Amino acid sequence: MRKVAIIGIGMTKFGEHWERGFRNLVIEAGIKAMEDSGLQGNEISAGYVGNMASGSLIGQEHVGALIADQMGLNPIPITRVEAACASGGVALRQGYLAVASGAHDFVVVGGVEKMNDLDTTSVSEILGGAGDEEWELFLGATFPGLYALMAKRHMYEYGTTEEMMASVAVKNHEHGSRNPYAQFQNKITIDTVMNSKMVADPLKVFDCSPITDGAAAVVLAPLDVAKKYNAQPIEIVASVQISDTIALHSREKLSEIKATKIAAQKAFEIAKITPKDINVAEVHDCFTIAEIMAIEDLGFFKKGEGGKASLEGKTGLNGEIPINTSGGLKSAGHPVGATGIKQAVEITWQLREKAEARQVADAEIGLTHNVGGSGATVVVHIFKKT
Amino acid sequence: MRKVAIIGIGMTKFGEHWERGFRNLVIEAGIKAMEDSGLQGNEISAGYVGNMASGSLIGQEHVGALIADQMGLNPIPITRVEAACASGGVALRQGYLAVASGAHDFVVVGGVEKMNDLDTTSVSEILGGAGDEEWELFLGATFPGLYALMAKRHMYEYGTTEEMMASVAVKNHEHGSRNPYAQFQNKITIDTVMNSKMVADPLKVFDCSPITDGAAAVVLAPLDVAKKYNAQPIEIVASVQISDTIALHSREKLSEIKATKIAAQKAFEIAKITPKDINVAEVHDCFTIAEIMAIEDLGFFKKGEGGKASLEGKTGLNGEIPINTSGGLKSAGHPVGATGIKQAVEITWQLREKAEARQVADAEIGLTHNVGGSGATVVVHIFKKT
Repeated sequence: MRKVAIIGIGMTKFGEHWERGFRNLVIEAGIKAMEDSGLQGNEISAGYVGNMASGSLIGQEHVGALIADQMGLNPIPITRVEAACASGGVALRQGYLAVASGAHDFVVVGGVEKMNDLDTTSVSEILGGAGDEEWELFLGATFPGLYALMAKRHMYEYGTTEEMMASVAVKNHEHGSRNPYAQFQNKITIDTVMNSKMVADPLKVFDCSPITDGAAAVVLAPLDVAKKYNAQPIEIVASVQISDTIALHSREKLSEIKATKIAAQKAFEIAKITPKDINVAEVHDCFTIAEIMAIEDLGFFKKGEGGKASLEGKTGLNGEIPINTSGGLKSAGHPVGATGIKQAVEITWQLREKAEARQVADAEIGLTHNVGGSGATVVVHIFKKT
Repeated sequence: MRKVAIIGIGMTKFGEHWERGFRNLVIEAGIKAMEDSGLQGNEISAGYVGNMASGSLIGQEHVGALIADQMGLNPIPITRVEAACASGGVALRQGYLAVASGAHDFVVVGGVEKMNDLDTTSVSEILGGAGDEEWELFLGATFPGLYALMAKRHMYEYGTTEEMMASVAVKNHEHGSRNPYAQFQNKITIDTVMNSKMVADPLKVFDCSPITDGAAAVVLAPLDVAKKYNAQPIEIVASVQISDTIALHSREKLSEIKATKIAAQKAFEIAKITPKDINVAEVHDCFTIAEIMAIEDLGFFKKGEGGKASLEGKTGLNGEIPINTSGGLKSAGHPVGATGIKQAVEITWQLREKAEARQVADAEIGLTHNVGGSGATVVVHIFKKT
């Protein structure tokens, strides 16, 4: 298997794009990534796109072919993959495998979701399809409810508090305020979160990531030719996808995401590093409790200490391990199919030292962590400056 | 890239499975394929599943993880791919690439669709998402309408008649009557088709494939170890996926599927054979006109002569090139995500000489042709007896 690098990145601003459609978002991200890569369109020989639910959200399936068409890339194959909120991460892994295997040299990988064309109740039901439709959603357990169960259990087992969870949102809004691509660029306080409307006890509205429109794209190349095209290729040193039970009630523990633990362990083995070697990470904070579990399950903090570490500022820009410099899903937004790709875009900016007001000093190695559903799919990527 | 073989196959009966759910269908096909392969579950290291629209049809996305869970295959990655009615073919190609590249040794590839849980109007709209939602479906052009336009143009350019189209349905029902897995096992006549209800002029209800529940699965292995597991491994000698414009109105011609022509040409080049070397083929007859265009665009007959060849019986079991021995989409049924895999299962039965009452004599090389939408994605595979 060949070494693989990112040579181009691009994304739209994340937010509520009432005036724009799915195609328009895809094209902006795709063209930016292509321009950044230094490649011509006819040098690309395959593509992958992560998209969760365009069929339900906008009535359009078959978005791989749609994107090949809109990007002027016919007749090359562009393949849509779906793994709920991990669709982007899974697409990146498929693109990585396509280049690593030698099947293709230059591959574009995108992620996109247009979510604001329906009312939020409908969107919430559609997102419920990321879990067990028959045994969770049908009985009323939407995602805030599922993550609230995990939060309650984490609080019970480890003494995690609502203030600790709130501190995750505060930190991510602080980061988001430095990211011109973020959906929310306003700073908030612990009180903002604590006084916000309850969604599913103990999760309040500021513990939850928003409904977002957006797209992101990367261009991949074999590492050995990457420097011909881009002065700062970023190597993908590990790409791991792990499955777990679709339903939360089938898991051994509610206070951890087992697939995150397995994926991280495998990724660190492949990259021959430990969690301590990671300088910056984008993790899947669909809810504040999800970030706390992630930084524990990825090995950045001991199990049960993620909440305390967050409250103490250890995950801020100048902390021990800066987490979600983009603002994360909470503040940068969560267009579900795009999130996994946006994470890779942010880490690429960081490792290129192009993250401007949110730059982490001396970032050499970065990690992305993308979760589908309540943890039934987890994708972990590790990236390295070259 | 390594050579790849099919070492296990399995499928459910196709039909209206009112008493069964999505999961149940997947499990039957998957277990049959695993048993046929001679592998243990823990030898499988990755999976792919083709599924078009479970989000809209049954409210369940994230079906890769769901299937990993239901099949007891956690924590390996199972990745859902979607390319409308070509989802199965695209999944097979991803599985092929995973084994060919050396990324994985043993891979299970499934296809599934549960379509009968909604009324047919809703299903027809959902299927419309395989085309251009904004410029076709929104304006009323569902798939029978799009293929009717192609049929009208084919009739105008080549003198194709409604009787010629009807003869495709008659032949496929004849084949389906010999296939215990087929949705319709009744024989029909030209009159049955000609006197059936008009759907979209000139296509009558017997020119159209039905709405179907079903699942199919194959197990792939590197060819060099395949014989250890199965006495009759079938080699995949070419796997090609091609994109074209999503909307029919953007095509240069209405009377051909350009992506079929390109995919076939590439596949024959890779396999170093010509259309004359194919002994048996499963082609995408979502409508009778689609089979006529397919057998022309694949190179089995000269352009414009597919209708006449069909009427003359050249595509029957004892014809020049037996087409759709399974009964095709028309008679065996069309659970959209499963169709591309079912085609591979049928060709495997043929090349193993296990197709019983529909066996083609001396079949050595087979082909499958799977179309997404009105031709925006085409996948062609070529298979060879080993």
